[in-house]
Amino acid sequence: MPAQKLPEVTTVACLLSIFLVPLAAAGLALMNVGLGRSRSAGHMMMASLSALAVAALAYFVCGFAWQGTIGSAGHALNLSGKYWNWIAAEPFFFRKVSFDGSIASLTALFQIFCVGLAALIPLGSGADRWHLRASCLSTALLAGWTYPLFAHWVWGGGWLAQLGVNYGIGRGFLDAGGASTIHVVGGLAALSVTWILGPRRGKYSGDGMAPAIPGHNAVLVLFGCVLSLIGWIGLNSAGAILFTGSEPYGTVMITINTMLAASASALTAAMVTKIRFGKPDASLTANGWIGGLVASSASCAFVSPAEAVVIGSVAGAVVIFSVEWFELRMEVDDPGGSVSVHAVAGIWGLLALGMFGQFQRPVSNVAGNLLPSTMSGMAPGQWLAQLIGVATLVGFVLPLTYGGNRLLNLFYPYRVSVEGERQGMDLHELGAGAYPEFVTHTDEFLPR
Amino acid sequence: MPAQKLPEVTTVACLLSIFLVPLAAAGLALMNVGLGRSRSAGHMMMASLSALAVAALAYFVCGFAWQGTIGSAGHALNLSGKYWNWIAAEPFFFRKVSFDGSIASLTALFQIFCVGLAALIPLGSGADRWHLRASCLSTALLAGWTYPLFAHWVWGGGWLAQLGVNYGIGRGFLDAGGASTIHVVGGLAALSVTWILGPRRGKYSGDGMAPAIPGHNAVLVLFGCVLSLIGWIGLNSAGAILFTGSEPYGTVMITINTMLAASASALTAAMVTKIRFGKPDASLTANGWIGGLVASSASCAFVSPAEAVVIGSVAGAVVIFSVEWFELRMEVDDPGGSVSVHAVAGIWGLLALGMFGQFQRPVSNVAGNLLPSTMSGMAPGQWLAQLIGVATLVGFVLPLTYGGNRLLNLFYPYRVSVEGERQGMDLHELGAGAYPEFVTHTDEFLPR
Amino acid sequence: MPAQKLPEVTTVACLLSIFLVPLAAAGLALMNVGLGRSRSAGHMMMASLSALAVAALAYFVCGFAWQGTIGSAGHALNLSGKYWNWIAAEPFFFRKVSFDGSIASLTALFQIFCVGLAALIPLGSGADRWHLRASCLSTALLAGWTYPLFAHWVWGGGWLAQLGVNYGIGRGFLDAGGASTIHVVGGLAALSVTWILGPRRGKYSGDGMAPAIPGHNAVLVLFGCVLSLIGWIGLNSAGAILFTGSEPYGTVMITINTMLAASASALTAAMVTKIRFGKPDASLTANGWIGGLVASSASCAFVSPAEAVVIGSVAGAVVIFSVEWFELRMEVDDPGGSVSVHAVAGIWGLLALGMFGQFQRPVSNVAGNLLPSTMSGMAPGQWLAQLIGVATLVGFVLPLTYGGNRLLNLFYPYRVSVEGERQGMDLHELGAGAYPEFVTHTDEFLPR
Repeated sequence: MPAQKLPEVTTVACLLSIFLVPLAAAGLALMNVGLGRSRSAGHMMMASLSALAVAALAYFVCGFAWQGTIGSAGHALNLSGKYWNWIAAEPFFFRKVSFDGSIASLTALFQIFCVGLAALIPLGSGADRWHLRASCLSTALLAGWTYPLFAHWVWGGGWLAQLGVNYGIGRGFLDAGGASTIHVVGGLAALSVTWILGPRRGKYSGDGMAPAIPGHNAVLVLFGCVLSLIGWIGLNSAGAILFTGSEPYGTVMITINTMLAASASALTAAMVTKIRFGKPDASLTANGWIGGLVASSASCAFVSPAEAVVIGSVAGAVVIFSVEWFELRMEVDDPGGSVSVHAVAGIWGLLALGMFGQFQRPVSNVAGNLLPSTMSGMAPGQWLAQLIGVATLVGFVLPLTYGGNRLLNLFYPYRVSVEGERQGMDLHELGAGAYPEFVTHTDEFLPR
Repeated sequence: MPAQKLPEVTTVACLLSIFLVPLAAAGLALMNVGLGRSRSAGHMMMASLSALAVAALAYFVCGFAWQGTIGSAGHALNLSGKYWNWIAAEPFFFRKVSFDGSIASLTALFQIFCVGLAALIPLGSGADRWHLRASCLSTALLAGWTYPLFAHWVWGGGWLAQLGVNYGIGRGFLDAGGASTIHVVGGLAALSVTWILGPRRGKYSGDGMAPAIPGHNAVLVLFGCVLSLIGWIGLNSAGAILFTGSEPYGTVMITINTMLAASASALTAAMVTKIRFGKPDASLTANGWIGGLVASSASCAFVSPAEAVVIGSVAGAVVIFSVEWFELRMEVDDPGGSVSVHAVAGIWGLLALGMFGQFQRPVSNVAGNLLPSTMSGMAPGQWLAQLIGVATLVGFVLPLTYGGNRLLNLFYPYRVSVEGERQGMDLHELGAGAYPEFVTHTDEFLPR
Repeated sequence: MPAQKLPEVTTVACLLSIFLVPLAAAGLALMNVGLGRSRSAGHMMMASLSALAVAALAYFVCGFAWQGTIGSAGHALNLSGKYWNWIAAEPFFFRKVSFDGSIASLTALFQIFCVGLAALIPLGSGADRWHLRASCLSTALLAGWTYPLFAHWVWGGGWLAQLGVNYGIGRGFLDAGGASTIHVVGGLAALSVTWILGPRRGKYSGDGMAPAIPGHNAVLVLFGCVLSLIGWIGLNSAGAILFTGSEPYGTVMITINTMLAASASALTAAMVTKIRFGKPDASLTANGWIGGLVASSASCAFVSPAEAVVIGSVAGAVVIFSVEWFELRMEVDDPGGSVSVHAVAGIWGLLALGMFGQFQRPVSNVAGNLLPSTMSGMAPGQWLAQLIGVATLVGFVLPLTYGGNRLLNLFYPYRVSVEGERQGMDLHELGAGAYPEFVTHTDEFLPR
């Protein structure tokens, strides 16, 4: 492939936005820790650091080869005269990436952090009971296969991106900042993991009550929100530049939209919990904040600030009801709320793009060859493209992820022993507690 | 208004500096938490996140419309032949902002984070006793009215900025990084809030002694200082570019000045506390660090590194004495030290600009039309312009803020009940403690 | 000196990378705190903030004058017809730095943060027993003399950089991101400090056993790793631009290499500890992560991603064995593992550059005048240049640092009293604990 490049200033803006993305990982890791128990806190951080590392290496080894970038080598199916690009075929180990500021090299860098972020999402769901080794293997599967496959379809010139060109459905499936590739993919992995692991002991005691098991450190949870905001600014800005052809100037509105969506979502979540439970719930407000960020990711480049407020507000309410529905109706024990915050809010964000998205100018200079450049204003059928994307996520990616994790579970059982869970993950798996000098009372939530 | 733009590279430098500003918010929030009690820690973080969200939304709704930017529509009074621009008149909801990298759009983005930062300042003063709902309303007042009004006068081409053109007083009131708009405005709101709330129970027991109520986590306090440093670098750089016409190159010296002022201030604070109390005080040293950052904000673009060291050193001493004076003489119970750190150090920084400020080149390309471009070197009467600004803050903004908060207090009482304060804000207002698994001893500072 | 400048976009990329460097300081400070005891946690943060402040001021006063930049005034020895530039001779207080985006001004800014980072390294080794005042004086020595002297040799056009021109040894000693100047220099200071301080009471009880004294907060340790990553991205990018002539585009590969080295190193450390102790060790994995970052610093601009993985993997193993060797064989009590993580991994990184470094294009436009610009590919003798640099560090910088600290120790005894150590540094030196409301059990590791 010829090394396609962005203008120099755009490259620098994109690059420096990417540098901020690990703050989102730092934020999510702290939230997962804070929402779990103290006896598993060291384990959660260890699992988070390991997930970032495994994801980066797996993506380096084979993930990028299968994701590729627009215009890279790939395999295509010929369906009734149209080519459906379904997987890239770049060499492994970044061997053909030209590290001269090409779009491919920026994508490789960006994705190294994005896959890590996606890998943190299931950790929040598997808190307090997921083997470290198993979580590393599950991360390798996600970063080396599931994520790149779907990301190729969206960001690598694959068939979802081609829906516009091939069938005139909007501009094809669009996702500027990774609501689908990072968050829904990660959130569906989280759902698979909770199904495989089952709930924590003592969560559903059989008498119909599901006691809330509070997180052990609310300060970390809320601090994680602010760090995540900065990471998300980088995420949405870099993604919009790389994958939807935003100019650096466009990131001003993107950042405003990101902040407004998070703000509206958090306040809505606080108000909904206040109305339902009598008092606003800090953890759920934090989840609302992140849900707003997730929902903003898809459409941040294509909506007005006022629409971002609407998208955020809906996200906040959706997250709260989803958390409750999964916890009480589905008996999905998801300590970090990852399924609702990432998968559900992400799906909402994808659909919202179909509802509100406006395209002032051709989308995009990057994927320019894929899109009818004469369109402007609302794209006819964009909602359908988004719906097809969501259907693919739920109908294809979820089974794929569930199946893969189920298979891994056969060989490397995901769940720790009863004794290990009682003891806490820190002592059981790492041989040392996270807070050895602090006096804790840790038994009240376990069945006697 | 024609969409005024900066050169492309300058825009990118400004934009990426703005991305770092939320780290200042993260830092201040952690400091407020760490300086408060463990039983209110979750509440403080919840209030901080809510403040960021409410401030962003209030600024989006009406704040920006009233602040405006140089050259935007506004209302002016005709006083003896001179026009005094006192409020902007832009449409609400960012409706006329052109999101193409215009100065107006960068200002809107920057201010969304700055009003949040200002809103965190009173939270430190109201720790352990301020209703969450009331703090949100107070934030809305600050971000939607008080802040924009004053910021218009300084950064929006209002009458304080016009002092130079209208009456030849220096270059008009100058503040590169927000010492006045963010910190003194926030600090005066903090003072108003402490007056309205009164001291925490047990603080002034009537026997003339004011027991120090130590913060519950010194690690968070000092960690917050380092995060704030990065946020401040963004704040001072972006502010200098947007409001005083700095080139991106100028931010090198700005950053050096910011770091040196903080360093000198922290070490001075450590030495002063060592001399006065026998041992250096970690919390007050942290307050000194932030005080140095605040003091650097006004003048960072106009002084030499050596002068920044002097400004920082004075700030460190001023903060310590101010904390003591407010606590012991004025019986102002300000757990976060916000009044001294933000209002007092900010005022010092504003005056220091009048004492030390040098202008190598016309100030500024942004507000160029407001300033006699032939001046260079020390501006005659700059100290007077600064003094007029400070007088306006103390004489007008303080009463305005106090009055507004007093009014809100009538309808939504600010202070929680005695029972709530005893129980802790976390349990009382949120129904859950921040650290449910840790054993704490929390009663020693309450009167029996 | 004529104010040499980089292209405008390069300057902005460098500048904004520098803005991220304090995150590395934040990360290291948190790691030092988390790896120490709760009774010294506030003291460690206080010492860290003080170290950053003292280092900045000392570097401002005289450090920069002695480090200089390429082409600045200096002293040279004439050895057999060749000039050996051994120290710069700029005026104190940044008096001649032109703050217009010149390379000199960027270097001054970058180094203000780098010396602070170096100064944090010994704090980890002296945890729980090092007087605050003494650590400040030791920092002043490091930032005002030792660091600038050696950094002049590497980054200021001194004799190590001249090895290429003067004797045709490779391209002279190379270090893009500070593996030698920051980490080995800091790590050797850490070693000196442990020798002078001696082990903590109870560490080596005389019966041949060295009980592990676990850190008090594993969450801070692992969170510090993620923050450090971002700081390191800034560090390696800015260093490569300033000192080895990277273009902004080059930082894409640099960042990928940095992330991959850290990832490989952390996973290797986890696996080695798992094999040796039966369970992976979270603290040592974190140390491995940082060791990978340190090792990446020297060569990040000159190796491929695959080589970065190899360098990281070796670093991870080296750190673990080094920690064990120093702790058990050398009876060096180094709570933060600073000697192994910074000095040993740094030396490995320097040598790895000699083994793997490839130079696609002349190194560099900055030090252009020092390097035969016709070379490309592997530079003959580069390994020798690196070896000479390492020998200088071990054979000259270590004795210099040890001697200087020994001298300071005579006048300002480094170690606190037995009573102070028992009581904890917080109460003893600061008069207040870091966590006054939490119940801790702190006596189990002390001899009865």
